[in-house]
Amino acid sequence: MDFPKGFCGGATAAGLKPSDKLDMGVLVSETPCVGAGVFTRNLFQGANIPFCREALAKGAVRAIVVHAGQANACTGAKGIAAAQSVIDRAAKHLGCESSEIVLGSTGVIGVLPDTKKIFGGFEKIFAADLTPEGIQQVGKAMMTTDTVQKTASVKFKLGGKTVTILGLAKGAGMIHPNMGTMLSYIVTDAAIARPALQRAVKESADATYNCLTVDGDTSTSDMVVVLANGAAENKTVKGKDSDYLLFQKKLKSVCESLARQIATDGEGATRLVTVRVKKAASQADAHRAAMAVASSNLVKCAIFGRDPNWGRIAAALGYSGAKFDPSNVTIMLGGVKIFTRGTALDHDRLALSLYLSETKEVVIDAVLNAGTESCSVWTCDFSHEYVTINAHYTT
Amino acid sequence: MDFPKGFCGGATAAGLKPSDKLDMGVLVSETPCVGAGVFTRNLFQGANIPFCREALAKGAVRAIVVHAGQANACTGAKGIAAAQSVIDRAAKHLGCESSEIVLGSTGVIGVLPDTKKIFGGFEKIFAADLTPEGIQQVGKAMMTTDTVQKTASVKFKLGGKTVTILGLAKGAGMIHPNMGTMLSYIVTDAAIARPALQRAVKESADATYNCLTVDGDTSTSDMVVVLANGAAENKTVKGKDSDYLLFQKKLKSVCESLARQIATDGEGATRLVTVRVKKAASQADAHRAAMAVASSNLVKCAIFGRDPNWGRIAAALGYSGAKFDPSNVTIMLGGVKIFTRGTALDHDRLALSLYLSETKEVVIDAVLNAGTESCSVWTCDFSHEYVTINAHYTT
Repeated sequence: MDFPKGFCGGATAAGLKPSDKLDMGVLVSETPCVGAGVFTRNLFQGANIPFCREALAKGAVRAIVVHAGQANACTGAKGIAAAQSVIDRAAKHLGCESSEIVLGSTGVIGVLPDTKKIFGGFEKIFAADLTPEGIQQVGKAMMTTDTVQKTASVKFKLGGKTVTILGLAKGAGMIHPNMGTMLSYIVTDAAIARPALQRAVKESADATYNCLTVDGDTSTSDMVVVLANGAAENKTVKGKDSDYLLFQKKLKSVCESLARQIATDGEGATRLVTVRVKKAASQADAHRAAMAVASSNLVKCAIFGRDPNWGRIAAALGYSGAKFDPSNVTIMLGGVKIFTRGTALDHDRLALSLYLSETKEVVIDAVLNAGTESCSVWTCDFSHEYVTINAHYTT
Repeated sequence: MDFPKGFCGGATAAGLKPSDKLDMGVLVSETPCVGAGVFTRNLFQGANIPFCREALAKGAVRAIVVHAGQANACTGAKGIAAAQSVIDRAAKHLGCESSEIVLGSTGVIGVLPDTKKIFGGFEKIFAADLTPEGIQQVGKAMMTTDTVQKTASVKFKLGGKTVTILGLAKGAGMIHPNMGTMLSYIVTDAAIARPALQRAVKESADATYNCLTVDGDTSTSDMVVVLANGAAENKTVKGKDSDYLLFQKKLKSVCESLARQIATDGEGATRLVTVRVKKAASQADAHRAAMAVASSNLVKCAIFGRDPNWGRIAAALGYSGAKFDPSNVTIMLGGVKIFTRGTALDHDRLALSLYLSETKEVVIDAVLNAGTESCSVWTCDFSHEYVTINAHYTT
């Protein structure tokens, strides 16, 4: 794990989760950051979301505060007041403006977080030293049904200076991003102008988080926020030059790693599934077709059962809304061609079952032969455990 | 069960299913029928589908043949040839034109049905007497993962004559109709012109089968076909007069009953779930919002777990694409108001859990307060058993 210069963090167990696990954290930059982000498009948005948009728009972010257990969405005026008071309290501890705080919250929808517990949590967090390693504790604190923590980092030379990007993410269920997804916080010491950073986040999220589904449900609290404090002292990235392209590529690699980690740790998942659609008529069609396969409960149950039931892949492509000639489509499972030009090829079902049993990452390819665009998306299989987890989430 | 005049049927076990259950059937009209139908919009369509469209367009249908076990979809030129030969053989037995036969098939996608077995099946079916009661056997023969047979009938006076409508349906998984759904065959002795019948089927399917989801997957083989032989001798229904409206209402009631039976028998289902969206800005929005809730794996898992986790209902409405002001929405579960004007109301969680435990039909109401349109849709809960059924369908 590489840490960008000038960021530190800390977390604590404030009693927000029924367990005694870490449930809130603070990620702080020593100096004000340029910030950019993408947020859920769900009409029911978390009470904290408008505050985040405002903070990023003002252009000087000092800290990200996140608490888990209650999503503080669908909580009306009381929820807004709670978010405001948590932000105000954090600003007081940090000696900064409330508008410099980004607030994330995740957990059960419709339940107010207990602000007294959160205030107590701040006391504990700020009484201790915040450290770079503490950032990882923040990543732990925001986990809900996640079974493993998701982090990714990359270190590279940008304009002769060493730049580091470190990303955290949480999310295992209610994952079907429509813009950003779940909570993902990324910090970098790169110097980059806000418009360039916003463009880089948008492009990266579209190609990674927006190519991810666990269960087809878009959360009320999704956000991807990137903070850049410029401590690496590279020449500020501004236009669409080679520095921008390099930064964007590296940022995307961090997002892709986190998105894959989320799919791998999808609720009840036993397999990571990558669906690659090629030669689609448009980028939108490629995305639509790949997401239809990745969202199909039937495809995902078959993978859980190690059943190479490729007809379900064809059916999902067929109802996706993407335009193509069904008699020109080729479908491959684990690199083995099983369907082409409208008919099944002779294939070894047993070998394919074995492939599904033994691989950790199931790869499905669909070549539409309708154009030149392609798209890869990630999901997981669908198991009994998903049902168990989600049958008793609040009770 | 009421039987319309002039229809009879028969079924047999031809060895198409791995079990020794009934797997093919023939439903015959003594006289040529006016026929109308709606078919899957999946780009991968069963090899039989184009033949059905042609038969209905010609306007004189004598029989419906249906076989289960293999869907004969994604089977290329061989599949088309197989469908043609099954149709030709049935026509030969019946002494009619091939263009007078509607062919349905359902089962595993990508596998050719064994036409020799089907030919053998015809020998057995036509060697015996076809009877009105035999129609119910046809309904049994087309079942796949269905645990109960779905039939509905209605008898009423039309223009002074007694008219009967009898409907059969199958389907438990891969149910997310986009036009018609699954296999549903409806016969009536009403006299009705083809354009009027087509309009009545379309209107009925839109309000019933197209308001139904089990798992979000649209099948390659869906069809709803209605045959009307005119044996009731009512004055032929033509325009949009009161006779048409009465016929359409009765046809819709048969379709609605069948759609509810399909949701009730959804793969692994323990509860029928009705989602009613009211006061939407448009009919499309009402349908979109209701289908989003009915399609949400999280909502459906919560119902399976008897967990009144209404926040998931709000989240689904919020990402549905329907336009509304979230602060104006009211959500009710089992008639109990739990969320209104942006916040949760005090509600008795235990009583709601009990409701979910004891009712056979869970009713979810969402009042959007954005207009005047409403829509009801049907689904089922999501259980471990769904995963079990679909993890090992072909292996």
